[in-house]
Amino acid sequence: MNALTRLQTELGDIVSIDPLDLAASRTDKSGWVADGTPLAIVRATEVDQVQAVLRIATEFRVPVVTRGAGTGLSGGACGTDGSIVLSVAGLNRILEINADDELAIVEAGVINQHLNDVLAEKQLWFTPDPASKAISTVGGNIATNAGGLLCAKYGVTREAVLGLVVVLADGSLLRTGHRTIKGVTGYDLTALLTGSEGTLGVIVEATVRVRALTAGTVATIGAVFETVTAAAAASAAVTAARIRPAVMELIDPIALAHVATYLGPEGSAGLPLGRGAFLLVQTDGPAALAEAEHALIVLRAAGGEATLSTDAASGERLLAMRRAMHPALKQLGQVLIEDVSVPRSRMAEMFAAIADISTRTGIPIPTVAHAGDGNLHPNFVIERQPGAAADAPVPDEIWAAADEMFRAALALGGTLTGEHGVGVLKRRWLRDEIGDRSLNLQRQLKAVFDPLGILNAGTMFAA
Amino acid sequence: MNALTRLQTELGDIVSIDPLDLAASRTDKSGWVADGTPLAIVRATEVDQVQAVLRIATEFRVPVVTRGAGTGLSGGACGTDGSIVLSVAGLNRILEINADDELAIVEAGVINQHLNDVLAEKQLWFTPDPASKAISTVGGNIATNAGGLLCAKYGVTREAVLGLVVVLADGSLLRTGHRTIKGVTGYDLTALLTGSEGTLGVIVEATVRVRALTAGTVATIGAVFETVTAAAAASAAVTAARIRPAVMELIDPIALAHVATYLGPEGSAGLPLGRGAFLLVQTDGPAALAEAEHALIVLRAAGGEATLSTDAASGERLLAMRRAMHPALKQLGQVLIEDVSVPRSRMAEMFAAIADISTRTGIPIPTVAHAGDGNLHPNFVIERQPGAAADAPVPDEIWAAADEMFRAALALGGTLTGEHGVGVLKRRWLRDEIGDRSLNLQRQLKAVFDPLGILNAGTMFAA
Repeated sequence: MNALTRLQTELGDIVSIDPLDLAASRTDKSGWVADGTPLAIVRATEVDQVQAVLRIATEFRVPVVTRGAGTGLSGGACGTDGSIVLSVAGLNRILEINADDELAIVEAGVINQHLNDVLAEKQLWFTPDPASKAISTVGGNIATNAGGLLCAKYGVTREAVLGLVVVLADGSLLRTGHRTIKGVTGYDLTALLTGSEGTLGVIVEATVRVRALTAGTVATIGAVFETVTAAAAASAAVTAARIRPAVMELIDPIALAHVATYLGPEGSAGLPLGRGAFLLVQTDGPAALAEAEHALIVLRAAGGEATLSTDAASGERLLAMRRAMHPALKQLGQVLIEDVSVPRSRMAEMFAAIADISTRTGIPIPTVAHAGDGNLHPNFVIERQPGAAADAPVPDEIWAAADEMFRAALALGGTLTGEHGVGVLKRRWLRDEIGDRSLNLQRQLKAVFDPLGILNAGTMFAA
Repeated sequence: MNALTRLQTELGDIVSIDPLDLAASRTDKSGWVADGTPLAIVRATEVDQVQAVLRIATEFRVPVVTRGAGTGLSGGACGTDGSIVLSVAGLNRILEINADDELAIVEAGVINQHLNDVLAEKQLWFTPDPASKAISTVGGNIATNAGGLLCAKYGVTREAVLGLVVVLADGSLLRTGHRTIKGVTGYDLTALLTGSEGTLGVIVEATVRVRALTAGTVATIGAVFETVTAAAAASAAVTAARIRPAVMELIDPIALAHVATYLGPEGSAGLPLGRGAFLLVQTDGPAALAEAEHALIVLRAAGGEATLSTDAASGERLLAMRRAMHPALKQLGQVLIEDVSVPRSRMAEMFAAIADISTRTGIPIPTVAHAGDGNLHPNFVIERQPGAAADAPVPDEIWAAADEMFRAALALGGTLTGEHGVGVLKRRWLRDEIGDRSLNLQRQLKAVFDPLGILNAGTMFAA
């Protein structure tokens, strides 16, 4: 009996070999498409089904690619040739919400926004907020240690994870962490598994911290600056003034011009969007208004044309500009969304390096940044010849420009990926950042969890 | 040439075999004393000396116990028979403070309070605040993932560590993490090493997050309740009211009586300290006063006799009661300070379980709790026969009572150790909490870092 027959015999209907299903599993939101065809996709709805898949995979030495909603941006959950694609999207129950202990226990496939909708009824929230939150799963957020817009103030996903239930490569079940805020018994396997991108085990359940919904107003400032350098300096001035915004987003002039065109005059919220760079600052909590008024003074002193909104509708119009960026760029064609992080103080230099690469290569690279934490998303716009396939591979000249961009980020003390993960698309730069010693050590750690090398084998540490 | 001669030849004066030095290295603040005599103590002041010690230890297969200030409470850094005690207390330089990026780079031996004193000049602070902060090192705080009074609001040490420089067992140097707030390139070795208690490598340098000193008032409430159950319920009511105190400390009636005697009438800050339980609530940040006024109403509604202080001096008098607890208990003789954590909602049950154990065994167990995060410190008072040695081992009947207490904490969904670590003193309960599968996995992870088993060999996973 081969692996496929065994899967079908043990698991029945949840095993699909429908060519459309298999084809869909080969890609993610990065647009990258894995070569070949997966063996099958298994849509688990129970933990014991996940265990069965891993036992069979171990027995037959078949690679397993775990997949949630498929919203990744690094090719890290794409069905490779001959692999079993293990979907945990159907493990989607919220098992417990405990307001007294400020925690929730959820299965891996629960959608982030759905969890937040349910939590909001109890005046609670789960702080990790990747831009994909409406469609991405909590398990995927944890597997990639997802970031988002609120991290400078509220932390990354890792800070919100208290414990995990994980199916190991051999199908056994591992519990890590605890229900308590503090706990130091043994190594922090919860943190090690967070961000491990499906290479160490399959996360099936998580105990996460939740917190009380912030009381008080939300105040939002939109500001336009002559140059991206001025906007970056202004964002640094906000931090230097000891203001702690929940959100601080920067849109560079190239991206802003596209957003202005996309939104039209009625979407401009009264700001001169046609030129310059845009900085959005949002404060929350009991001192939101005082902090925003202070920020307004700082931004104007830094040369910004700024407007402060305290009502929900006009605040929403300002946030809509940030949200319009990806739809606006999508109209230009295929886009490679990159994801470097640099120390906040080096952000202006990173923008300059990107502009320089763009000028030299002729590739448009509109860029947005989570300015509060120095995480930039340069968008490499791929100009296709008429008639080219929409999902054609990223051309070499784009990767060459991205390569320069990664090196610039590392030279500034930054990192290859702030929040999207290594996956397939960044594995070739991994060694440049972490070095041989760490790479070898990390490969050995993977071998402890996955001695046969069947878990997401083509990603992260693959040669 | 043997290991000692080699150490002395290569490292000269920083190697001591003075019997007083060696004896002092065998104990920590838990009072536990390791058997036998260490081979030598090496007081490193440079990273290359640490590397040399590890190379020699590897070559001669000699165990190494890394030690900072020796303030641990679990026997986790005590010089064992035949080991090299590697003191990193002399690696005590602050290498960088960067206000723009809100980070500091420090060597492992820097004292937490010293770092905070230097940071305060720039209106910054390092949030991890173990009760030992005046005497404990940042490296030790990281090695134990230290907690403290502020964790419910400001997180544990792990959340403040961005990157590490670590000397591995073979003497090579590993760099982990980054200078950026976000970064997901590879596994989170920084988090894995945080709390690893010297068993995976020797932390010599850390890049830590710092933050702006909180603006606004600090407001402090002291409240006395009839029973510890009422005080625990009141602390839960504060959380339920969506107040986020920086500090929330609970002292049970037995401990409070000792504190009252120790401080005398002039230390009571006008509160009836002779009976009942004491709850301290401190708020900070821009809404400190409003939050404290709200908390005052909640505490009074919960039956507390409460007083609110907004001036520094009277707030300090309230905090002094908490600080007086350990000195007050020390007057009673030797004390075993325990450290369980339970989900906040189970705290009253944990107090009841401790009271029950105390009643049945006749052992006084005055208890204090970091009530905001459910971390209790039951203090087992050891009544010695007259003339008994002050550092005699903890008697079996005390450990038997502690054993019951650990089991009660685990049964409530808690953990053996919230912030002190496993060390030597809790290794026998480790398996009860994490189970065989996790224990075996963690032993294999240790073997990746330390294949010869020379790093802090008698602690944590030792059988």
